[in-house]
Amino acid sequence: MPGISFIFVGKMKEPHFEAAFAEYIKRLGGFTKCELREIAEQRLGERPSQREVAAALEREAREIERAIPKGAYVCALCVEGPQCASDALARRISELDARGVGRLCFLVGGSYGLDEGLKARADWRLSMSEMTFPHHLARVMLAEQVYRAFTINAGKRYHK
Amino acid sequence: MPGISFIFVGKMKEPHFEAAFAEYIKRLGGFTKCELREIAEQRLGERPSQREVAAALEREAREIERAIPKGAYVCALCVEGPQCASDALARRISELDARGVGRLCFLVGGSYGLDEGLKARADWRLSMSEMTFPHHLARVMLAEQVYRAFTINAGKRYHK
Repeated sequence: MPGISFIFVGKMKEPHFEAAFAEYIKRLGGFTKCELREIAEQRLGERPSQREVAAALEREAREIERAIPKGAYVCALCVEGPQCASDALARRISELDARGVGRLCFLVGGSYGLDEGLKARADWRLSMSEMTFPHHLARVMLAEQVYRAFTINAGKRYHK
Repeated sequence: MPGISFIFVGKMKEPHFEAAFAEYIKRLGGFTKCELREIAEQRLGERPSQREVAAALEREAREIERAIPKGAYVCALCVEGPQCASDALARRISELDARGVGRLCFLVGGSYGLDEGLKARADWRLSMSEMTFPHHLARVMLAEQVYRAFTINAGKRYHK
């Protein structure tokens, strides 16, 4: 099964989300190698213009692209992407493994999401919901789903 | 704006989810009255039959229906229901308010979800994702979305 990289923009602030994320990563570590890289979130004023936001996202995108491991299959999380059920995510990960993908890299942006160009260049855009969740909660949701996918692929029982 | 009742099956176990949920409920309490009722989850063996699961869900449903406040508008969370975006959720809550709904009651089941009959009798079935999330995490996601809806309706800025 492929190794997993998470590249996130911004530092986790809430200790409860940090603890929840750490718990899923620990469990996921029982299945595969995984790593987390946090990119600094660009500072913006209270009410930034669209141009200021776009410029900040572009700077973050350059940092993210430097952090993506060579040869990794890149999945960008974005609310407008296609969704998939948990068992379909599990199948997709096992298909990537069958194709020889050694590392799957998930990207979660900061308060303003991810740069459009970065999303367009990603191998896969994935939405977890039509709803907009805070990015720190989205990290927990993603870690849980990736862990769940590995338990499904391992044929293990896992409580809902 | 309507008061909010959350009726959940089973006790929260993970302190990090409990803390995250409590934080959103505290914030939501700044907008409206909200209350939480936890129904005991029926005990089942390791590999229960479909019939055993259905019977347990029916018993839980009876407890849930006793806990639903009189006249409340009932929203049952279920993976197969229709989804809605965060701003659509906010609009729906303000429409219910305009129709004179005094209390909106959200139901989240336990490990095996909610009874089919209960879902059919609900005024509204809502899915947050095609993905299946653990019900304790789903509670946090729901509380965040309800809080978000109230901030949207109050015209407040809220970080993503």
